[in-house]
Amino acid sequence: MKIEITEVGPRDGLQSEKVLVPVANKIELIQRAIDAGVKRFEATSFVSPRAIPQLADAEDVMAGVSDAQDVIFQALVPNLRGAERAARTGVHEWVWFLSATQSHSRANSNCSVEDAIARCEPVRDLARAEGKRAVAAIAAAFGCPFEGVTPTAQLLKVAGALVDMGFDEIKLGDTIGTATPSQIRRTVTQLKAAHPDLKLILHLHDTRGMSLANVMTGISVGITRFESSLGGIGGCPFAPGATGNVATEDLVHFLHAENYETGLDFDKLITHGRWLAETLGHPLPARLLSAPPIGATQPLDSAIRAVG
Amino acid sequence: MKIEITEVGPRDGLQSEKVLVPVANKIELIQRAIDAGVKRFEATSFVSPRAIPQLADAEDVMAGVSDAQDVIFQALVPNLRGAERAARTGVHEWVWFLSATQSHSRANSNCSVEDAIARCEPVRDLARAEGKRAVAAIAAAFGCPFEGVTPTAQLLKVAGALVDMGFDEIKLGDTIGTATPSQIRRTVTQLKAAHPDLKLILHLHDTRGMSLANVMTGISVGITRFESSLGGIGGCPFAPGATGNVATEDLVHFLHAENYETGLDFDKLITHGRWLAETLGHPLPARLLSAPPIGATQPLDSAIRAVG
Repeated sequence: MKIEITEVGPRDGLQSEKVLVPVANKIELIQRAIDAGVKRFEATSFVSPRAIPQLADAEDVMAGVSDAQDVIFQALVPNLRGAERAARTGVHEWVWFLSATQSHSRANSNCSVEDAIARCEPVRDLARAEGKRAVAAIAAAFGCPFEGVTPTAQLLKVAGALVDMGFDEIKLGDTIGTATPSQIRRTVTQLKAAHPDLKLILHLHDTRGMSLANVMTGISVGITRFESSLGGIGGCPFAPGATGNVATEDLVHFLHAENYETGLDFDKLITHGRWLAETLGHPLPARLLSAPPIGATQPLDSAIRAVG
Repeated sequence: MKIEITEVGPRDGLQSEKVLVPVANKIELIQRAIDAGVKRFEATSFVSPRAIPQLADAEDVMAGVSDAQDVIFQALVPNLRGAERAARTGVHEWVWFLSATQSHSRANSNCSVEDAIARCEPVRDLARAEGKRAVAAIAAAFGCPFEGVTPTAQLLKVAGALVDMGFDEIKLGDTIGTATPSQIRRTVTQLKAAHPDLKLILHLHDTRGMSLANVMTGISVGITRFESSLGGIGGCPFAPGATGNVATEDLVHFLHAENYETGLDFDKLITHGRWLAETLGHPLPARLLSAPPIGATQPLDSAIRAVG
């Protein structure tokens, strides 16, 4: 069975880096991920450069990678101005980012959930006019740093409003890493029952060690698309102790061990994850950057000598 | 549903600490875990003090905790000499530790798997004479740092030999953290089919982020007992990049979130995990020591101010 992975490191991952990453390194990150087999990226965000200086180079990043073949680039478009910027680049899919809870919406988008949905309308219309695909991403879909566990009914209401707006593809973001397998099962099952044609993508964080259990559960209820970031970079600015996205290395290692196909080359991911750690200048949370993969062996002699 | 957790921090956890931990701190670790509701411990090992200096104080640890009520103490007894030492203490259950693979057996016990099984006989007999329970622990049950993935047939053979020796309780150790959900499912299912009365305990490490997925799978095939260590301390001396045991904090957090009962007090575990990190003088890998539990909230105002 094939599982598709969207690499979100260039946007969701780098956004959390304190030091500005040179555009050449962002382009190289994307090129290296393509070399490892990645076919879809969340590449950048056309947000105001004042709001997120790290992503002020959105146009330059896209110019640097736009000759890539057979690769789909997504970018966040937070408003009509961002959409107009995106329209002048090689971005294929526009991501409309909103929150499932009022508090997270207020903190992240400075508006209510209802306003965030309504404000999408001109962006949706421009996407249609430009022949771009519009994708919705719901943050705090499972838990909110201000409101606690997100009620499933509340998420269903937001998703339903997005479907009414014409979205047929929604990313469910476990922004602070509190989703549990039973919550994933309940949420996905109810969403699929309400909207049989809706495509769902799971975006998980490993903050409390539950991400791969959630991946396994997601697959068991029909999810075939996940998001992850090389090295496990990223985080949530509001969530204390939040680690990054589930690492692409760890996700691919797990999926291959469980006999799923991803189309990604694990060894290349490790090479490029190590390059990323060196480039960013700090250790990254991906487990497989320090532990060898399942089945790796070392000589017995050296171990016996080492222990004495 | 009730899940029983054996706290292995005092033995498997502390064994990996480079600096000798004072016996008073070991006793306090056990007392604090009891305060949090732990009912069963792997408390120490009656190994040669020359082989593992960190556990040379086995008698002193046991003397310090032997007045505990309704608590079961296990200890490793690596040979008849160790068993004789254990018999003079308050240890209730003797753990016979061996490996599923020849190379790990050679590195860890300096003998073949067959010899490790045969050598258990006098210990088993002394346990019976002393009215102690004998439990077997199979290391490298799922993967070996020298031989790669452990074939399920090989594990079944070792487990079968132990059953023939009279063991009715076996710990399956994922020593280097390579077990996968499908491997757990296959292994447990086959072991239960071959030995319907055999009690199985899963001992997992989170080295590659798969431990909670394995817990979930273990429960789905009838496992109700797991081992973990406070703070996630521990490791395997032969396994590069190996992190410790799955952390008791993270395991209990996950189980409670999924509506299993453990009898443990999560808040107390966090308090005691923080004490342990301070006492050992270095950060511990337990995720819930840095991230708040599911449902925790912070004020929205402060977050908005922090982000600007």
